[in-house]
Amino acid sequence: MRVRKRKGAESMLENNPQYVILDPENYKGKWHEVFGNDKPIHIEVGSGKGRFVTGMAAANPDINYIGIDIQLSVLSYALDRVLAQRLPNVKLLRVDGSSLTNYFAEAEIDRLYLNFSDPWPKKKHAKRRLTYKTFLETYQQILPEKGELHFKTDNRGLFEYSLASFSQYGMILEQVWLDLHDSDYEGNVMTEYEEKFSQKGQPIYRVEARFV
Amino acid sequence: MRVRKRKGAESMLENNPQYVILDPENYKGKWHEVFGNDKPIHIEVGSGKGRFVTGMAAANPDINYIGIDIQLSVLSYALDRVLAQRLPNVKLLRVDGSSLTNYFAEAEIDRLYLNFSDPWPKKKHAKRRLTYKTFLETYQQILPEKGELHFKTDNRGLFEYSLASFSQYGMILEQVWLDLHDSDYEGNVMTEYEEKFSQKGQPIYRVEARFV
Repeated sequence: MRVRKRKGAESMLENNPQYVILDPENYKGKWHEVFGNDKPIHIEVGSGKGRFVTGMAAANPDINYIGIDIQLSVLSYALDRVLAQRLPNVKLLRVDGSSLTNYFAEAEIDRLYLNFSDPWPKKKHAKRRLTYKTFLETYQQILPEKGELHFKTDNRGLFEYSLASFSQYGMILEQVWLDLHDSDYEGNVMTEYEEKFSQKGQPIYRVEARFV
Repeated sequence: MRVRKRKGAESMLENNPQYVILDPENYKGKWHEVFGNDKPIHIEVGSGKGRFVTGMAAANPDINYIGIDIQLSVLSYALDRVLAQRLPNVKLLRVDGSSLTNYFAEAEIDRLYLNFSDPWPKKKHAKRRLTYKTFLETYQQILPEKGELHFKTDNRGLFEYSLASFSQYGMILEQVWLDLHDSDYEGNVMTEYEEKFSQKGQPIYRVEARFV
């Protein structure tokens, strides 16, 4: 997600250390301490403006959520939402999806979400897709055995690619949805993007996959 | 595929032993002898009126094709097509998909096709779907290591189910198409059903999966 640079975003993040962890490398292996409880921790890689991660956190108070995004301004909008709801079970990190092992210990994260990730449609950019095998390797390191990755997108090419990528990496597809909004799936928390694009009649694809 | 009973279908099949093998149990392990060559053998389970299997055979003379269907009348229409083109590389069998190991030896078949199989949409009928695990077990026995299964359908529910079923069986998804007719896939041979339904704007789903 690209957004215009937001004035004051940086100081906003700095001024809310209870929600925004600016030195996550210091908490590797200590995230349950950060949250102050032993509840499972779910992470969204590429959390954008935070509608999903805050919506999930509000609906599931017994789960801790970490939203990560690399863009300062985007993260500041997510912070708006966290602040508005004073959600005790959300933390935001400004880090890159490829560097997760710097911030999280083995099996420290219980589930990983990817929502409407950048499709990088050109073949030469396949390595940048968040479902490329090097990313899957990273995710596997911070998830437990049989740890789950839940992914949704409206991008057909990215979804086709990702199903094959998961499978070829050795992951198991638990369930697949080829039109999420025309299914009996319950409890879907929409992202901003999802609401906008699904209104155009675009199907939303979803998969729950797990490592072995 | 259900069709009306065709008068004379049975004698038609009986009168064309060069194309219709009525006693396939006698040729288990001997199909290369039946074809008179060592070319790979591909099988279509549920070949219906035979447009796919004959189209593939005409386009690929260096591959032998076996179309199987359990329905007499349906098979007789496939025979019409084989006779019209005098295709030396097609055989038709009136057998059931669950009994393949009675007719084919281990690794005797090089690739297996499923096209627009009956979706059996009710959960209680899942065992009848040709992508249910017991069928996959059967297919695996007659295919070589890493043997491929190519499947296409317009039925969303069946495709969602089948991707998960393949994966959970331990198969690897090599490639997935979520709108075959709007893709760069070349050499697609349409079935009767496919032509009819794709004209309605229904996407055709396709997957190439392999056993390990």
